Amino acid sequence: MDSVFSDEYFMRAALNEARRAFEEEEIPVGAVIVCKNQIIARAYNMTQKLNDVTAHAEMIAFTSASNYLNSKYLTDCTLYVTLEPCNMCAGASFWTQISRIVYGASDEKRGYHQTSEYMTHPKTVVQKGVLEEECAELIREFFRRKRV
Amino acid sequence: MDSVFSDEYFMRAALNEARRAFEEEEIPVGAVIVCKNQIIARAYNMTQKLNDVTAHAEMIAFTSASNYLNSKYLTDCTLYVTLEPCNMCAGASFWTQISRIVYGASDEKRGYHQTSEYMTHPKTVVQKGVLEEECAELIREFFRRKRV
Repeated sequence: MDSVFSDEYFMRAALNEARRAFEEEEIPVGAVIVCKNQIIARAYNMTQKLNDVTAHAEMIAFTSASNYLNSKYLTDCTLYVTLEPCNMCAGASFWTQISRIVYGASDEKRGYHQTSEYMTHPKTVVQKGVLEEECAELIREFFRRKRV
Repeated sequence: MDSVFSDEYFMRAALNEARRAFEEEEIPVGAVIVCKNQIIARAYNMTQKLNDVTAHAEMIAFTSASNYLNSKYLTDCTLYVTLEPCNMCAGASFWTQISRIVYGASDEKRGYHQTSEYMTHPKTVVQKGVLEEECAELIREFFRRKRV
């Protein structure tokens, strides 16, 4: 069992969000934002449902967390997301000045590292690979079913 | 007078949006999205009002245009925006596969070209410098007043 408040613990919460996306036939990416060990935002990819490419899990989570904190800046927060953010989401994270980003699976095609590692804010510490295999497997399973 | 349906004509519509931002004490950036010579979305920067860093003019315009067209993709559309898009907005434009982006002033600090010119979709044609001076002057005037 994950210890409480570990990165794995919060990534499991993000994975739960990703599973909701899966059930709704969205590419299964989920995110949570944590502030002082409390989850203040939960979101999953809704691009299909909302017919809106900007409705990535991270973007919804940023807006939700800002709303909760009544602050544009998320300087004391950590984003947990099951997949490496794309350029849009990494670019958004820059503006939030979020303290940490923890992601699960790398995205070798659309992850922001394919463009530049300098996309996040200089103050943002980025960690990858937490529950990587579970995060990646959920996405692989999604596309396997799509292909059938 | 601008000829109807010229880039200058539509950039003036984007400038009108930027002026609304100015009046509401937002950094004055405005955008419109045009499809078949018709403006289908108008937006201006609302980051202060909404307390949300994702509320850039372009992002709001993408969502609005997708809603209007009932399509995630904006393949027959042109975005007119008074300032060079940031990484977030250029990254969002990638997902929309928008046909063209026309911007006014360059952003030497936060424009996406500072990170990479390969941020937009390969199908997207980008043109800069339309009504550049008017677009830039509005932003300069905003910051001059802020400093007083």
